[in-house]
Amino acid sequence: MIHKASAIAHPNIAFIKYWGLRDEENRLPANDSISMNIDGLTTRTSVEFDTSLQEDQLSLNGDEITGKSLSRVQKFMDRMRQLADIHLFAYITSENNFPTGAGVASSASGFAALALAGTAALGLDLSSEELSALARFGSGSASRSIPSGFVEWHTDPDTGESYAKSIAPADHWHLVDCIAIFSEDHKPVGSQAGMLLADTSPFQAARLQDSTRRLEICRSAILNKDFAALSAITELDSNMMHAVMMTSKPPLFYWQPGSLALMKAVKEWQSEGLEVTYTLDAGPNVHLICIPNTFDALIERVSAFPGVINVLHGKPGGPAKLVPNEDSGTSPN
Amino acid sequence: MIHKASAIAHPNIAFIKYWGLRDEENRLPANDSISMNIDGLTTRTSVEFDTSLQEDQLSLNGDEITGKSLSRVQKFMDRMRQLADIHLFAYITSENNFPTGAGVASSASGFAALALAGTAALGLDLSSEELSALARFGSGSASRSIPSGFVEWHTDPDTGESYAKSIAPADHWHLVDCIAIFSEDHKPVGSQAGMLLADTSPFQAARLQDSTRRLEICRSAILNKDFAALSAITELDSNMMHAVMMTSKPPLFYWQPGSLALMKAVKEWQSEGLEVTYTLDAGPNVHLICIPNTFDALIERVSAFPGVINVLHGKPGGPAKLVPNEDSGTSPN
Repeated sequence: MIHKASAIAHPNIAFIKYWGLRDEENRLPANDSISMNIDGLTTRTSVEFDTSLQEDQLSLNGDEITGKSLSRVQKFMDRMRQLADIHLFAYITSENNFPTGAGVASSASGFAALALAGTAALGLDLSSEELSALARFGSGSASRSIPSGFVEWHTDPDTGESYAKSIAPADHWHLVDCIAIFSEDHKPVGSQAGMLLADTSPFQAARLQDSTRRLEICRSAILNKDFAALSAITELDSNMMHAVMMTSKPPLFYWQPGSLALMKAVKEWQSEGLEVTYTLDAGPNVHLICIPNTFDALIERVSAFPGVINVLHGKPGGPAKLVPNEDSGTSPN
Repeated sequence: MIHKASAIAHPNIAFIKYWGLRDEENRLPANDSISMNIDGLTTRTSVEFDTSLQEDQLSLNGDEITGKSLSRVQKFMDRMRQLADIHLFAYITSENNFPTGAGVASSASGFAALALAGTAALGLDLSSEELSALARFGSGSASRSIPSGFVEWHTDPDTGESYAKSIAPADHWHLVDCIAIFSEDHKPVGSQAGMLLADTSPFQAARLQDSTRRLEICRSAILNKDFAALSAITELDSNMMHAVMMTSKPPLFYWQPGSLALMKAVKEWQSEGLEVTYTLDAGPNVHLICIPNTFDALIERVSAFPGVINVLHGKPGGPAKLVPNEDSGTSPN
């Protein structure tokens, strides 16, 4: 046993999104998904086991965390302890290089980094697939922050094997994700609670039935670097997920008026020839994916867009990876 | 033959909406629908046949109309001429008591009034069912502006019979429709063109499959004056239609940011106890249906709502009816 290990991981943005579970206990998603890690944003997590601790302690961006967020992490630590058959508690420190509450979910990068640092500190040497399968128990999308670059999370419906793997490396396609932040508030209904309502929508079954088709189009678009095809399927998939949310019982409206205005603006910009597409997770912030040639024009327009309080950006990111413990700051990039 | 006749009709607002055709040539809708006529808004149309005319002439709110709008009306006149086997042309004058281009579609009230005035002028004495079936060839929703009050438009899939009839009279339930106008512009894609895209949405089949259930809930809610039930099914149906629009190919976004802001505000107002529900047709304006007790508080809030440029309102309206030719002004309602 190593006692202490540190890891970094990036959040990811899904082109084909995950919404709904086919098996809640085993955290098996209702449909496969495809995403890209976001290089510019990084979570750095250290796990240090200590025989003197009576329970896990969590520090997030310098704040001691208690309550539900701590319980969720402790539950995930329990799973790693069982794997290693080691029953010690740990100090967990996690820092994001992006503003706390910036409207970018850190659960994907957070649980990916925690899975890697935690298992390493316990002396486990897991494969990328095993880490990805493990990370999904912390947060579904964390499974996609384990492998590198462009990633597909697949579940075998027969065996229940469920992990993400890379379909193309980070340098395969020089896309940029510009994230237009409209709100730094916590969502009224989080993803984990929201997606339990997915099956109450009259559209969820049709969304799932059509998912293989969308996955194929998206995978081909990425492999062939076909921006027009990626754009059409990314927007359709985002609109479909939000349509399911808005027709759930009770309905969930994650869009804000500014989000809708920006989506409509993107359609205008596209008609002017700008290569950009939009997608929104379970929140009001709009991810604008573009090619490098479009980046400058896009950033200028988005920064001036009414209601946008911040714009973050990043190119396709690498995998979760171990980093030296000595480096106590956040990753510079 | 009478030569000249005049009629009035009201627009209607659908709780369960019509979107998509199962048979374009025969104007058979893909699903049945339920609506309420809007008393406060009235179209008055006169048809006067004249042996000296070489083609139909149309005056709308005092303007001579040519082009596509004239062709659409002439095509509808042809249908009535065939029914009567009379082949004369007519002066058609139509006036709305609501501002032109106020964002309230006048095609439903317009074609309902035209069907009644036109057939009367030709000496035809059609039943309400026959008039409704005829009016749908001008505009689908016009079929619902023929009968009185609360109306259901049903299509028999075997015989192809397709007309609306009253399920409750106008005074059955004292609802009020407050229409928040966000835009007076013409829609970029009109209903007739937009609904031809319905089948390109992965959700249209599911929307149709679920329509019998929604119709039953809506019909019961109206018959039992159950506002909570009407509210839930009306919003779901509106969200479902717009979800189909937003996932069509190409996608259609009729909502404006202000429309979304007002829908979200309605959810807040409901949680404060205000009995109000929303529904949107193929446009950005929000119909807010409420009970009389809620009306004053609602009008105050809606009139002050950002982006709202006008608020119209009306209680449940009567049927299309013949009026004396002498009355050349618009109906005072």
